[in-house]
Amino acid sequence: MKSPYLICGFPGSGYVGKMAVDHLIEELHAEHLADIYSTSFPPQVLIRSDGTADLMKNTIFYSDKPNSSGTNLLLLTGDSQPANPDSEYMLAEEILNIAVKFNTSHIFTLAAYITGVFVEKPRIFGTATDTDTIKSFSERSISVMDGGSITGMNGLIIGSAKLRGIRGTCLLGETSGYVVDAKASKSILETLLSIIGIGIDMKNLDKRAKDTETLIETIEQQMSGRTARQQTSVATRPSDMGYIS
Amino acid sequence: MKSPYLICGFPGSGYVGKMAVDHLIEELHAEHLADIYSTSFPPQVLIRSDGTADLMKNTIFYSDKPNSSGTNLLLLTGDSQPANPDSEYMLAEEILNIAVKFNTSHIFTLAAYITGVFVEKPRIFGTATDTDTIKSFSERSISVMDGGSITGMNGLIIGSAKLRGIRGTCLLGETSGYVVDAKASKSILETLLSIIGIGIDMKNLDKRAKDTETLIETIEQQMSGRTARQQTSVATRPSDMGYIS
Amino acid sequence: MKSPYLICGFPGSGYVGKMAVDHLIEELHAEHLADIYSTSFPPQVLIRSDGTADLMKNTIFYSDKPNSSGTNLLLLTGDSQPANPDSEYMLAEEILNIAVKFNTSHIFTLAAYITGVFVEKPRIFGTATDTDTIKSFSERSISVMDGGSITGMNGLIIGSAKLRGIRGTCLLGETSGYVVDAKASKSILETLLSIIGIGIDMKNLDKRAKDTETLIETIEQQMSGRTARQQTSVATRPSDMGYIS
Amino acid sequence: MKSPYLICGFPGSGYVGKMAVDHLIEELHAEHLADIYSTSFPPQVLIRSDGTADLMKNTIFYSDKPNSSGTNLLLLTGDSQPANPDSEYMLAEEILNIAVKFNTSHIFTLAAYITGVFVEKPRIFGTATDTDTIKSFSERSISVMDGGSITGMNGLIIGSAKLRGIRGTCLLGETSGYVVDAKASKSILETLLSIIGIGIDMKNLDKRAKDTETLIETIEQQMSGRTARQQTSVATRPSDMGYIS
Repeated sequence: MKSPYLICGFPGSGYVGKMAVDHLIEELHAEHLADIYSTSFPPQVLIRSDGTADLMKNTIFYSDKPNSSGTNLLLLTGDSQPANPDSEYMLAEEILNIAVKFNTSHIFTLAAYITGVFVEKPRIFGTATDTDTIKSFSERSISVMDGGSITGMNGLIIGSAKLRGIRGTCLLGETSGYVVDAKASKSILETLLSIIGIGIDMKNLDKRAKDTETLIETIEQQMSGRTARQQTSVATRPSDMGYIS
Repeated sequence: MKSPYLICGFPGSGYVGKMAVDHLIEELHAEHLADIYSTSFPPQVLIRSDGTADLMKNTIFYSDKPNSSGTNLLLLTGDSQPANPDSEYMLAEEILNIAVKFNTSHIFTLAAYITGVFVEKPRIFGTATDTDTIKSFSERSISVMDGGSITGMNGLIIGSAKLRGIRGTCLLGETSGYVVDAKASKSILETLLSIIGIGIDMKNLDKRAKDTETLIETIEQQMSGRTARQQTSVATRPSDMGYIS
Repeated sequence: MKSPYLICGFPGSGYVGKMAVDHLIEELHAEHLADIYSTSFPPQVLIRSDGTADLMKNTIFYSDKPNSSGTNLLLLTGDSQPANPDSEYMLAEEILNIAVKFNTSHIFTLAAYITGVFVEKPRIFGTATDTDTIKSFSERSISVMDGGSITGMNGLIIGSAKLRGIRGTCLLGETSGYVVDAKASKSILETLLSIIGIGIDMKNLDKRAKDTETLIETIEQQMSGRTARQQTSVATRPSDMGYIS
Repeated sequence: MKSPYLICGFPGSGYVGKMAVDHLIEELHAEHLADIYSTSFPPQVLIRSDGTADLMKNTIFYSDKPNSSGTNLLLLTGDSQPANPDSEYMLAEEILNIAVKFNTSHIFTLAAYITGVFVEKPRIFGTATDTDTIKSFSERSISVMDGGSITGMNGLIIGSAKLRGIRGTCLLGETSGYVVDAKASKSILETLLSIIGIGIDMKNLDKRAKDTETLIETIEQQMSGRTARQQTSVATRPSDMGYIS
């Protein structure tokens, strides 16, 4: 392959990254390249709806649909992240070995930026292993992080990439942390697509993002209702309590 | 050997699987094949009734009693499962290495399906690594699982088997989770025997199943008695409390 | 060496085993043979009274003082047992490698049998890897254990010895578990000496055993005093409370 | 290099050791020699103020500025200590391998001696792997430790050094354990500089030590104030409570 990009979507908070990469795999009709098994994944088989069982794994797909820079895509998705820190480092090395074998030029990890509040329009944050990439963030409205740390696979993979001379970028989609957040997934995927110069059908992810919006509205209504009632009952103890179920 | 079946009975909830395989080993007069020791078993020796001590181990027996499909049996029983997840994966690999060496064609793991309640007739649940096996479940009244996961050796062994091109089936006997449950053991063994086409004397396991039934009846009587008394005393505080010890 | 015995005294409850072996090393003027370091010992250096610091270790000494059966002795003492189960197995293997190199014929581990009560004369319990040794226990008033397990190095070493074709015996000295118990150490050492056919000066250990007795008497007086006072004060609340400090 | 000294400043309580070594690296304009990465460091990348991200690491610098004994200096600083005991031993071995490669003659680790109280003038405590070094402590007002243990990298490195035939000294600066303590850092660095016979500009560390003093004074005033008020309110319950917010 001609120095492809590797896009990683690990399961994590709100499934922000995994949902974005799974959508990309589906719409690009990406092909199966390799399964990665690890003794550090949770020790279990997952049972599918047809009754069959499989070990937990990470899987890499590839797509040769041409993008603006003429590179191919490697796409990583998985059932799980490793269960202990040592193994996170080792899985990152394993993935880097595969990335190097295919001459990967740039690795993107898609993560969640948890804020604890629901927002109308999720922001995208970013960090990278080189200053050129950081400089390009402003063109795409990516907020540059200037401190703190990225924990887990999303951080280790770009850190390990740097040691191998491969560029690494971590994009983080703002999310509450309370729900599976397709809205944040859609935002992060749009930002990624504009960076890698590729267009895909967003209909299915759009639909899921609308579902997330409806879910959040329902939660907000319930919470504001409950808070209002609590405030009323505690603060004023009105004689008419009939509206409390 | 001519592509034998491997039947695994690890110690676990209710000893459902282990008791079934131990009965099978005894009735088939199966012969000792190999001991498996692991640094991940609990760090101790078990003392036998004659005073001698042994490290914890898993043991594989074999039986060449012909069954309906003309295959032999490998039978695995053990003192313990590994104490940490990594080691469960590694023991599964070790067991698969032995299975491959003897051309094993199908691996069965016998597990417990914990429900928290006592039942008259335990159901048998199942999952497998291929759809043909799943389809055959209905002939034997095995309920096909269509979601969730199997944790521990019973899951990892069939998942690892699939990667080696060996069929894997996990049968789960319904059990409360509160007692050593020979009744569930008997049910799961009867289902297994009908699958592998072999007949053995069930007398000893029958006797233990009856003991389990008696134990469960005793527990149920004590529980319903205590509940009734508590309800009476709390709800009505009768003047005559003499029957409460 | 001519098939020596290996005597192991690991630090553990009441320091029963370690104190016995340390006394043996001292009285036999045993010579330093090898130090064993392990990444599984607690990660620290111990500071000695002269200010110098050393990594934690296990040490093997040897003595060629002839005993009744004409064999030499290897004596193992240590600062620590490993901090995790896997490493206990691996240290046992390491020690067995050394034992095999010196043609060791029989390994003894000296352990504590915790009862939670103070006794006048500590009993000695035992288990072994062969029935001949078990049979010989009655001659020396060793109570044969007929169930349960021996956890940690004292169990693993004799279990691993059995797999290498070396006899293993674990002797356990009865102790309360509350104090460093030189009395139990003395009992277990006397039993060991009668088995291996060797005589040494017991004066120093005798003195420490007397100190243990004094300590236990003091504890028992304080406890019976406190219990009596508590019972009095709670049960009768006497008007004269002057004797309570 | 001509048998250099290795000075280690790991991050730990009060950053006493790390701050001292970081100051030394800066003032000596020490040059980058090697980075050490470990799968046992916390699994994350640290984000710098320019937005770029790096894996956690330990780094060794060297300086050939001549000192009184004509030796060079190796200087180790790091983002983290390993997260588990086994890995602490292994990192110590890794560092010793580098030390041996450069003919290191003496290793110093700079640690914290936590007392839980604020002091005007921090004492320096010490332990070493040889009695000659211990004897030299009195000339420099270093209190010789005569018991206890040094846990973590600061202990393991000198313990491992001893096994390789390299002298090891651990100096510990007295600190409360409550604040980042540049005052203790300054004291320990002054003691180290007098031992290795080298002079550097202390201005920057002096300034930070003054900041620490100011911080401690503020804390002490707040604490004595709060305590006084609490005592007043609890003990005397004055009618005028207006000054309690």
